[in-house]
Amino acid sequence: MRLDSLENLFLHEIKDLHNAEKQLIKALPKMAKAAASDELRQLLGEHLEETKVQLERLEQVLEKMGKPVRGMHCKGMEGLIEEGDKLMSEEGDETVKDAGLIGAAQKVEHYEIASYGCARTYAEMLGMMDVAELLQTTLDEEKAADQKLNQLAMSQINVQAQEQHA
Amino acid sequence: MRLDSLENLFLHEIKDLHNAEKQLIKALPKMAKAAASDELRQLLGEHLEETKVQLERLEQVLEKMGKPVRGMHCKGMEGLIEEGDKLMSEEGDETVKDAGLIGAAQKVEHYEIASYGCARTYAEMLGMMDVAELLQTTLDEEKAADQKLNQLAMSQINVQAQEQHA
Repeated sequence: MRLDSLENLFLHEIKDLHNAEKQLIKALPKMAKAAASDELRQLLGEHLEETKVQLERLEQVLEKMGKPVRGMHCKGMEGLIEEGDKLMSEEGDETVKDAGLIGAAQKVEHYEIASYGCARTYAEMLGMMDVAELLQTTLDEEKAADQKLNQLAMSQINVQAQEQHA
Repeated sequence: MRLDSLENLFLHEIKDLHNAEKQLIKALPKMAKAAASDELRQLLGEHLEETKVQLERLEQVLEKMGKPVRGMHCKGMEGLIEEGDKLMSEEGDETVKDAGLIGAAQKVEHYEIASYGCARTYAEMLGMMDVAELLQTTLDEEKAADQKLNQLAMSQINVQAQEQHA
């Protein structure tokens, strides 16, 4: 895709996000399964359902623009997921690994916050206000997911992890 | 490294960040060279100098803990840099590509915001207040870098990109 207009850059970002969300929909069940804490497993499970709706929103955006859903491969998300996979495969204590899993999930959320923030701004500048609104809804959900992970870490998981001594 | 204590998880995060900053020190000059806008090139150049100091802070942390500086390979940062590389290699208009470059740099900043946020929290919980302060200084710089990129996009680059029509 030639990056010769803001519309094309926007489309590039949406296709990248579409692939990122698809990768995440595959990864989240593995992360939930690896979680030892019931609360963390539930949070990751809830975010999986949210992510499926977020993918649908991106498909709505592509449909409105009359563009094929076929995306591209998102290298950024691939790296973040590989990092989480590597962490899950390490030996160790389950609460310490849960704390690490929360960190890995927060890196994913921050990636999405940056990407949806850009995409929402481009949509506003292109005068596609309904599209900007869809993207803002997802952006708010990603920020809320990051906050929920943070709260769980601070109120429980990190505290339990701290009680472990090598 | 066994993840069997919060201290080991913290060390894991610091080594990951150390490698991430090293990768970024290699990538930022290429990003600055690819930028068409003088202001963007200057901003990326300034952030390169900041990043070198941030790497030194991580080395101070490892030294305080009596741990070798030798890091691990950060897959997350690798993916984010590859994504930026791919964008820079696309054909197109230089202001549109600059807008995309700002987005790529903001994804890097957000990755670091999430990582330094986790690391700072672990350091606080481990009672290493001087270390937490060092990490907070870097965290504040990463947030400021993200804001500066945002301001440049909104005040100039995105507006110029919008004037391009394919």
